[in-house]
Amino acid sequence: MSLIEHVTSLAALPGGRLPAGALGLARLSLLDWMACGIAGMDEPVATKLRAFAESEGTKGVSSVIGGGAASARMAALVNGAASHALDYDDTHFAHVGHLSVGIYPAALAVAEEIDTSAEAMVQAFLVGAETAIRIGMVLGRSHYNQGFHQTATAGAFGATVAAARLYRLGEQEMRNAIGLCATRASGLKSQFGTMGKPYNAGLAASNGVECARLAALGLTSADDGLMGLQGFIPTHTQAAEFDGGRGLPSLDDFLFEDNKYKLHACCHGTHAMIEALLEANALQGCGLDDIAAFTLHTNPRWLRVCDLKEPRTGLEVKFSYNWLAGMTIRGDRTGDDRVYRDALADDAMLADFARKVRVVGDDALTDMEARGAVTLKDGSEISIYHDLAARIPQTVLAGKLQAKAEAVIGEKGAALWGRFVDLPGKRACNLGQELRREP
Amino acid sequence: MSLIEHVTSLAALPGGRLPAGALGLARLSLLDWMACGIAGMDEPVATKLRAFAESEGTKGVSSVIGGGAASARMAALVNGAASHALDYDDTHFAHVGHLSVGIYPAALAVAEEIDTSAEAMVQAFLVGAETAIRIGMVLGRSHYNQGFHQTATAGAFGATVAAARLYRLGEQEMRNAIGLCATRASGLKSQFGTMGKPYNAGLAASNGVECARLAALGLTSADDGLMGLQGFIPTHTQAAEFDGGRGLPSLDDFLFEDNKYKLHACCHGTHAMIEALLEANALQGCGLDDIAAFTLHTNPRWLRVCDLKEPRTGLEVKFSYNWLAGMTIRGDRTGDDRVYRDALADDAMLADFARKVRVVGDDALTDMEARGAVTLKDGSEISIYHDLAARIPQTVLAGKLQAKAEAVIGEKGAALWGRFVDLPGKRACNLGQELRREP
Repeated sequence: MSLIEHVTSLAALPGGRLPAGALGLARLSLLDWMACGIAGMDEPVATKLRAFAESEGTKGVSSVIGGGAASARMAALVNGAASHALDYDDTHFAHVGHLSVGIYPAALAVAEEIDTSAEAMVQAFLVGAETAIRIGMVLGRSHYNQGFHQTATAGAFGATVAAARLYRLGEQEMRNAIGLCATRASGLKSQFGTMGKPYNAGLAASNGVECARLAALGLTSADDGLMGLQGFIPTHTQAAEFDGGRGLPSLDDFLFEDNKYKLHACCHGTHAMIEALLEANALQGCGLDDIAAFTLHTNPRWLRVCDLKEPRTGLEVKFSYNWLAGMTIRGDRTGDDRVYRDALADDAMLADFARKVRVVGDDALTDMEARGAVTLKDGSEISIYHDLAARIPQTVLAGKLQAKAEAVIGEKGAALWGRFVDLPGKRACNLGQELRREP
Repeated sequence: MSLIEHVTSLAALPGGRLPAGALGLARLSLLDWMACGIAGMDEPVATKLRAFAESEGTKGVSSVIGGGAASARMAALVNGAASHALDYDDTHFAHVGHLSVGIYPAALAVAEEIDTSAEAMVQAFLVGAETAIRIGMVLGRSHYNQGFHQTATAGAFGATVAAARLYRLGEQEMRNAIGLCATRASGLKSQFGTMGKPYNAGLAASNGVECARLAALGLTSADDGLMGLQGFIPTHTQAAEFDGGRGLPSLDDFLFEDNKYKLHACCHGTHAMIEALLEANALQGCGLDDIAAFTLHTNPRWLRVCDLKEPRTGLEVKFSYNWLAGMTIRGDRTGDDRVYRDALADDAMLADFARKVRVVGDDALTDMEARGAVTLKDGSEISIYHDLAARIPQTVLAGKLQAKAEAVIGEKGAALWGRFVDLPGKRACNLGQELRREP
């Protein structure tokens, strides 16, 4: 089956055929995404994009995070950027990127526009996310290493499919929507460290709404915008993987079930280490002073990402194994974004502990694993290990995500979970209402 | 000088430093672009994009071709697509693409929004067009051959600079605008033959307005979005030309002066042949029956573009040397888009003449040249030759473009030229008013 057939089959799966496990996870993603969005609503990029929305003055049919309402396309742009502003949202490692921030804003904005149920919106998201994962996998590492940002590029196709499903496009229109997205999708990693990064998430979402809407209006486009001649994939990667899509796993299993959630407000590359340290019973009650040395093994790709030896700011601490190891052992609330103040970089106790930490690149580990050894001053050694790939039972995950929501947005987080942990009977616009600024 | 410095210097050139010849040509481009837009206003892609604008319901500050008013970004999108719908607009061969349709919609929309003079708008367009040409040249043939559409990609940077100049961005904001455009610009050639092609022109224009506007609002981005690490150019071409921009010609001469105008409503690859046939005095008064054979030499790249031997529709006739040669000698009005009806493909006289035509690929010719020999039945031979690269005096060109405008939009074309051949004293909104649908 060609990639375009694979994607159109996926897009057309009836709700009843969507795997229950994946759907359950999509519901947890929704609440986690909303909490990240609400937490990010006053970040500069969110404020500026709301000013842009204000100046365009669109017809208000979809909710804007921290604002009122705007057109679906505009709401998708603002909400994508606002929810990715803190970089605390989910990650899918095989897709190589963030799914919720590019796709939920599109699904929610269109679902509010057409006034449908929250459940139909979640289903559209799930199908879009699964599309984005698979296109991201075909684009592969070569695409990412060349400088493209799958969150934005593959994400736009996911957002397009999610929006198109809600607009109930037929097969030909769906192909046109995907073909339009092929000429519309964009996004570079060179934006990292600037407002351009969260903007990229907004681009995925708004491109998806635009392409689906234009296809619904009858715009035509390339018949196979994915692997066709001069389609998106051959023009944007030097080495398409999975035999250009023909070698993708079947649609019986949804790869979305491997979506991963940030439970710590720092670089995802440090999370396996943090979890490994938290899990080590022998470390309970240990102080930083009890430890003589800590050696960490991690996949070499992370050494260029989150191995800052002497962080200078709170933001840089988020990318420092040395600092985060000390914080974790000391019991700091690594899940609370407000903990990462600039003063943390000057914390003498952490600076002292950092000198005991050695980080080793190790090809035997995947980029979701961490392995290490803590040597205590009494000479004993404690081995630690964690693999983020191991799935957490959804009930356990729900508890952790709810605690995260409460950590980042307080009361509002608890209320959100209380209200929407059960979706049946809810409308998309009930969800949207939660994102608006309270009067 | 690095490319980003080259572009920011260009963007900041004071009006008085812009070459008079290039400015004069930009004024002619404006009227030609407006005529193409008005001629295309009822094409399906224009109608559908107006419906999209309608559904978004933006604040009306900029004129929409064939409609009322919308936000600057939305007007740019619709007007880019509408003006490229007939593919009768200008081409810059070194840039490899169409300048006016991607950049004038952005310049005009922003100029109306801020209510400035027509002259300031033309200057912003010129600076944007010169930017797009130079970025297109650095992206080079490799970018085009890989499947990208310079009209959309390099065009977006041109539109960004034009809009940013009108918004009076400072140097850092200008860099941010260009950096945002690096992550926003897109456009594939696989859209050719579908509504996706004119949509690409709209993308260039609306991306330009969006990126300039967001930079004005303070959005940050990659410092060097062009040749910087994972910037637009290294990620979008395998062989950047002109030493990555350092080898570009100086800014003393504007390459825009080589912009070329379609005077025939068919593929630009056939125009050198048509002009060569029209110029041959010895062919005046010759009928198709007087001719025994016609051999045409053309650059080989055109053989894959406009050498359809048996066109089946009026659209296909536009890509057929054989048919167009007969039409030209017969005296058909090749400049009138309405001539290309489907019945023309069944014209027995043209079909008969087509059998006498032989087209030869010839590497000795550039893609702007045509050479040929017409053999009459009396045995005599007439040599023909034309090079589109030869510049036409602007007074002569003005006459031809005015005639073209009258051919495609009749009275309205004459009125447009009469009213706006002199721009001083005119506001951008006077121009915009001409594009709206008459009440």
